[in-house]
Amino acid sequence: MSREQRARIDTLLRQPRPAGDGSVAEIRANFRALMARMRVPEGIRTRTTTLGDRPAVLVEPAEAPRAGTILYFHGGAFVFGSPETAMSLTANLVTRTGFRAFSVDYRLAPEHPFPAAIEDTLSAYRALLDGGEDPATIAFAGDSAGGGLTVTTCLAARDAGLPLPAAIVAFSPGLDLTRTGESMDTKAGADPLFTRASLDHTAAMYLDGRDPRQPLLSPAVFADLTGFPPMLLQAGTNELLLDDATRLAARARAAGVDVILDITADVPHVFQSFAGTLDEADAALARAAFFLGGHLNRD
Amino acid sequence: MSREQRARIDTLLRQPRPAGDGSVAEIRANFRALMARMRVPEGIRTRTTTLGDRPAVLVEPAEAPRAGTILYFHGGAFVFGSPETAMSLTANLVTRTGFRAFSVDYRLAPEHPFPAAIEDTLSAYRALLDGGEDPATIAFAGDSAGGGLTVTTCLAARDAGLPLPAAIVAFSPGLDLTRTGESMDTKAGADPLFTRASLDHTAAMYLDGRDPRQPLLSPAVFADLTGFPPMLLQAGTNELLLDDATRLAARARAAGVDVILDITADVPHVFQSFAGTLDEADAALARAAFFLGGHLNRD
Repeated sequence: MSREQRARIDTLLRQPRPAGDGSVAEIRANFRALMARMRVPEGIRTRTTTLGDRPAVLVEPAEAPRAGTILYFHGGAFVFGSPETAMSLTANLVTRTGFRAFSVDYRLAPEHPFPAAIEDTLSAYRALLDGGEDPATIAFAGDSAGGGLTVTTCLAARDAGLPLPAAIVAFSPGLDLTRTGESMDTKAGADPLFTRASLDHTAAMYLDGRDPRQPLLSPAVFADLTGFPPMLLQAGTNELLLDDATRLAARARAAGVDVILDITADVPHVFQSFAGTLDEADAALARAAFFLGGHLNRD
Repeated sequence: MSREQRARIDTLLRQPRPAGDGSVAEIRANFRALMARMRVPEGIRTRTTTLGDRPAVLVEPAEAPRAGTILYFHGGAFVFGSPETAMSLTANLVTRTGFRAFSVDYRLAPEHPFPAAIEDTLSAYRALLDGGEDPATIAFAGDSAGGGLTVTTCLAARDAGLPLPAAIVAFSPGLDLTRTGESMDTKAGADPLFTRASLDHTAAMYLDGRDPRQPLLSPAVFADLTGFPPMLLQAGTNELLLDDATRLAARARAAGVDVILDITADVPHVFQSFAGTLDEADAALARAAFFLGGHLNRD
């Protein structure tokens, strides 16, 4: 496929170490600079709005929208990122499905540690439901920490007695703050973005002293996924967090949940961001869009 | 989704026990009767031909074929089944992709134990290559024992120095004659088709005294999948053989192979056969067709 493309991206990611151990301001600025290089596809309209208690960016297809809403949760270790930094991912899902998306600007640590992010994403989901949206036409999607939020927001919704969305798509989800996946060790060095130390640095801000051994912080280890909607989990093999996805998939199977564990070799964390540059990114987004179309389209 | 459909199919499968411990003639007749109930979609043309050393059934779309060939391997524990019994699956892939398929009538045990089946499927693949077919336009697909053959034929092709096909699709593949998967025990009773004893009965005919601890008999445990093409493995959670798929997926990830492990809850072995009757079957076949289209379509 794209051996040269993959090598180029690996080299690019090894340079600025956007999730390194600098100050919060540096981490946020580095990540913004990195993600500004990603290609946002044409054919969308965006506007800032409010969803629940927080700002959100509504991303709509410029033409021929289909009934259906993606609630998108951006990545950034609960410390950095925004709807803007995830716009390539969100817009790709919108243009490829025809559904609109709301990308939630949830509160970040260290200013707002756990469970602020989940409170905000749950509030956004509740706002959609209160607005009359049918949960059968809503999917949760997200990347990295936001991929984790697709799962923990669903747990929180179930606990709150809300109906669950129709599908979940997670790109390289972070699902274990106990960091006990084998890939935390086996993929050290192969992961061009993260080290255990860099992950610990930001996780400490989100945890703020909490014990990570609980479902809302480490769902890949502790969550009961009974009743969850069909899930698509995508990850690369060059990821410390690979086994967050593999273990969640195993828990989903054990709980009787439809789950697709979709692994691409030799690509890094959230490789889908490189759509337009990396063939595997476009192919993975096409599969994600096909999955969403199959689960939300009730026409 | 289709709770009632799934319950009806479970009841149907629990009656005749087509893979039970009767005589070979009984097993073959029971399976033929069961599979004759499956719906073959319209819009195909079939004719018997020869591929390599064996008969094969060529299945073509009646209209608008696309360049690309699926080499299909039917299921039946290496003892029963034929291109006819798998026609619903093969025809669904053909109508949904537009590719043609050759379904190989490989030799069966006990008359022809291991490695006769693999010799025949490899011979069929070699015949396609010798006929000038570009391996980039060939996929292997199969169900159950034939799902196992998608993997072992690829191993045999690699060992023979042949170029590998562009993709592999396996429905509920049988990939471990050591029968050491956890699901062999955890899914006992939940699997409406198989018991450990019924699987042992037919496996003994194929093994004919061989040690199952080798890659061509138990690839989920022993195969090195390095260099394999992208794989889509689909299985249900009501299967003794579920962990054949999950363990092969883990080996694929470890070998740097793109692999999608696509699990549907509360459905039996090769539930895709129930296309037209079970919503999950049609959805799974649609995903398989999308996967094949993405990997074979070089237009």
